[in-house]
Amino acid sequence: MTDATDGREPLEPAAPVDDAFHVFDTTLRDGAQREGINLTVADKLTIARHLDDFGVGFIEGGWPGANPRDTEFFQRARAEISFRHARLVAFGATRKAGVRAEDDRQVAALLDSGAPVITLVAKSHDRHVELALRTTLEENLAMVRDTVAYLRSHGRRVFVDCEHFFDGYRANSGYATQVVRTAYEAGADVVVLCDTNGGMLPAQIDAVVRTVLTDTGARLGIHTQDDTGCAVANTLAAVDAGATHVQCTANGYGERVGNANLFPVVAALEIKYDRRVLPPGRLAETTRISHAIAEVVNLTPSTHQPYVGVSAFAHKAGLHASAIKVDPDLYQHIDPERVGNTMRMLVSDMAGRASIELKGKELGVDLGGDRELVGRVVQRVKERELAGYTYEAADASFELLLREEIEGRARRYYRVESWRAIAEDRPDGTHANEATVKLWAKGERIVATAEGNGPVDALDRALRVALERIYPQLAGIRLTDYKVRILEGNLGTGSTTRVLVSTSDESGDWSTVGVAENVIAASWQALDDAYAYGLRRAGVDPQE
Amino acid sequence: MTDATDGREPLEPAAPVDDAFHVFDTTLRDGAQREGINLTVADKLTIARHLDDFGVGFIEGGWPGANPRDTEFFQRARAEISFRHARLVAFGATRKAGVRAEDDRQVAALLDSGAPVITLVAKSHDRHVELALRTTLEENLAMVRDTVAYLRSHGRRVFVDCEHFFDGYRANSGYATQVVRTAYEAGADVVVLCDTNGGMLPAQIDAVVRTVLTDTGARLGIHTQDDTGCAVANTLAAVDAGATHVQCTANGYGERVGNANLFPVVAALEIKYDRRVLPPGRLAETTRISHAIAEVVNLTPSTHQPYVGVSAFAHKAGLHASAIKVDPDLYQHIDPERVGNTMRMLVSDMAGRASIELKGKELGVDLGGDRELVGRVVQRVKERELAGYTYEAADASFELLLREEIEGRARRYYRVESWRAIAEDRPDGTHANEATVKLWAKGERIVATAEGNGPVDALDRALRVALERIYPQLAGIRLTDYKVRILEGNLGTGSTTRVLVSTSDESGDWSTVGVAENVIAASWQALDDAYAYGLRRAGVDPQE
Repeated sequence: MTDATDGREPLEPAAPVDDAFHVFDTTLRDGAQREGINLTVADKLTIARHLDDFGVGFIEGGWPGANPRDTEFFQRARAEISFRHARLVAFGATRKAGVRAEDDRQVAALLDSGAPVITLVAKSHDRHVELALRTTLEENLAMVRDTVAYLRSHGRRVFVDCEHFFDGYRANSGYATQVVRTAYEAGADVVVLCDTNGGMLPAQIDAVVRTVLTDTGARLGIHTQDDTGCAVANTLAAVDAGATHVQCTANGYGERVGNANLFPVVAALEIKYDRRVLPPGRLAETTRISHAIAEVVNLTPSTHQPYVGVSAFAHKAGLHASAIKVDPDLYQHIDPERVGNTMRMLVSDMAGRASIELKGKELGVDLGGDRELVGRVVQRVKERELAGYTYEAADASFELLLREEIEGRARRYYRVESWRAIAEDRPDGTHANEATVKLWAKGERIVATAEGNGPVDALDRALRVALERIYPQLAGIRLTDYKVRILEGNLGTGSTTRVLVSTSDESGDWSTVGVAENVIAASWQALDDAYAYGLRRAGVDPQE
Repeated sequence: MTDATDGREPLEPAAPVDDAFHVFDTTLRDGAQREGINLTVADKLTIARHLDDFGVGFIEGGWPGANPRDTEFFQRARAEISFRHARLVAFGATRKAGVRAEDDRQVAALLDSGAPVITLVAKSHDRHVELALRTTLEENLAMVRDTVAYLRSHGRRVFVDCEHFFDGYRANSGYATQVVRTAYEAGADVVVLCDTNGGMLPAQIDAVVRTVLTDTGARLGIHTQDDTGCAVANTLAAVDAGATHVQCTANGYGERVGNANLFPVVAALEIKYDRRVLPPGRLAETTRISHAIAEVVNLTPSTHQPYVGVSAFAHKAGLHASAIKVDPDLYQHIDPERVGNTMRMLVSDMAGRASIELKGKELGVDLGGDRELVGRVVQRVKERELAGYTYEAADASFELLLREEIEGRARRYYRVESWRAIAEDRPDGTHANEATVKLWAKGERIVATAEGNGPVDALDRALRVALERIYPQLAGIRLTDYKVRILEGNLGTGSTTRVLVSTSDESGDWSTVGVAENVIAASWQALDDAYAYGLRRAGVDPQE
């Protein structure tokens, strides 16, 4: 048990955002429920730093006491993070039925977390009180009243999440409203109406929030789930109706389909509503923060996410590309720079000449004058894409193709005679991976062998061993990501394989593609392009 | 040039849906603009069949005349498909400025397509008329009027898409409204208001649609893009305001972020609005059709898509799992069966006992009574997931683990001594892939070697060669899908690799997982589980 004078109260953030409107993030609590996400304490701390950097007002860190990981998170967050904008929030439940708040261990763990703000989840659907809590409607109100008052008396701000509020309101609007009133009168700063099973549509949210606001006068928040595909719109509908606290998760991560996505909600408020909900200058970090959090949770960033997806401002149709040459605003609702994203022209079969010319310009090559050259490039891209290549995600491979057409020949740094990779599982249970490459460079035949963690790693190392003397610049180039896609999904391991490799040096990174009937051969192609591009950009002359 | 009596008019669909509300699909035209999609004519025909099977009223097939693929699609669709519910729609533009409709080749190609319905795209934003079309506002109205009237005189139904309508309405509401009125008075059945750059929010859509409906009396349709994450809500807002024609794409495919997703729009109309927009019984096909179309366009079905994603009714949180044991409605807004989906309990670190018990029940194993067993399974799942395994997507590997704990030992069909795979690129440019396995089965040591398209394929074949005599049942088991995921995205080819393998026999399919430091070793594990599960389910006794 602790009290308000135990000295464990964390400092206020350095530059807290305006309290009149709350951007409340629950990635670390509700977002972590998403299928495929499994966060360590270190992951949670990293994400909290990103969210604070983005400028949300509140970060819900988890349920201290409910699992050891969340308890540890609050301890370490207090010790290791100095928040600039955000306040840390602990999530928990109202006291158990028939127990005093001060005797409830789960409630004590909330105080022990040291979080300055506590979100209490409360039942507001009459049937759930009876079915799930197995108590009376009256006792449920007392549980809300007592727990809020107790935490307030210990100096904590309290938000109350009314679980299943909208379904509860439909079933028994009087009781649902009474829960809101009870929480507010007991001292909750905000009462949050939750569409827990995500079944609502914007018009329904709007109507209920308006009525409850009028009936109770409470400060209201909104928590939506995306089960109808309307979580962002539902959140904005609640704001239209007077809610001043929005609960979201980064990239919309969450149980089932997910939660309201923080980024489009914030972008809409800032850009479409012209309402300042982030500290100055932070909106332009949206894309970076979104991708950084995806990296931490180890999910590929959604390419088609509004505002921040790599495709969000990518233009493919020949018609659009022609129009965009005239005026970018025609097919973009905002300047992508506002959210830290960029316009991209896609090189694709459908693209046509205008796209290839714009792409050339993006790469610093003016193709405007040479219709025949552009035609040849369009033709080669078509053929290669038919074979499974994709240049949309492999800018460096496209640039090599483009320069090859401009210069009339490929710039080759070595000529490969043959390679071989062996993966082995030995009788003693150990693995061995070994590769040999035979190539010609600077007029010399070189044979090199190396071991690696896998056959592709071994090939990569063998290639570096073979070339390190002639091209010492390779030491500064490293592989940073590696993706494998099987192109015909219903042919088992006999399908065509596409490999995308990301590579970086001191000053940036680039992507290359390889396609072949197996993963090793496809990887080799992508590696080959990656090094050719890396050496070219380092200004190295070929020594073939 | 053709006329209405050329006999190429296709038959009406066998059982057309009610014309009072149009579900209009544009996957084959606007959806194909999505980054990563590249459809052949055969793909387009397959998708058209799926959409007709689903029961949409209109299928926009492409822009005949603009590219040969779309011209061919209309020819083949007429010859090869008997539509049951849908009418085929050709997309095109109004006549060029200063040319008579009957002299415009692009307009002639629309008639030549033989499609009974034609969507004409028209400019309704004054600035675009001047900037992009480079003509006068008056001439643009004449282009709309003439082209609609001309196509009507040839017996075609005409819908007019007002491009950039909402931006145009903001810039010059009088002119935008005049375009709608002109199209309607010239004989267009529906005038479709398009949010072409996707920047609108539901409240804006609602207000504009209401006003235009009052001002013109035209039948209105809605076409939205998802750039604010509100395309579904925007479509529904237009319906609330009186639109009776919705343009959508399967899985929301489309330019940039995408279009309004057909499936949540239709599900909301059928379930939330209680409005019959599909033929009877088709709603339950939603999940199947969504996944089938994803297969055709060769994109992994989005796991978190509303209604149809495999995660849409998947429950992970221990709290939710406990509640769902009491009442599934608590965390599901609809019965997943209504859209052909199913509830799933996820086996995961966070799941806790209730999830494991429910999962056991799903697999036909009652674990209710054995707390110690459940505890052991929870522990093993935690350890394995920490190492990179994921049982959420590998039901068969989880079931093997579960049965191993129940039976006290793994059921082994053979014992592997060693394996080796070699991938080679020879001096003459050919590839060779060869694998050898050494194993014990039925007391016998077997050594087998096989070649394949790649090293994993070669290993798979070698394993089958080794075992075919002892387990002839393997002949009925085939690999159907193969996925590779690199778990630590910023370590290049040295990262941990997770492989998921899907396998099927006569009566169904199953998924298994393998994790190792390289793709070959991880594939081997997943194959090993796949065959162990397949033999077990075929009722084969181990002959180790």
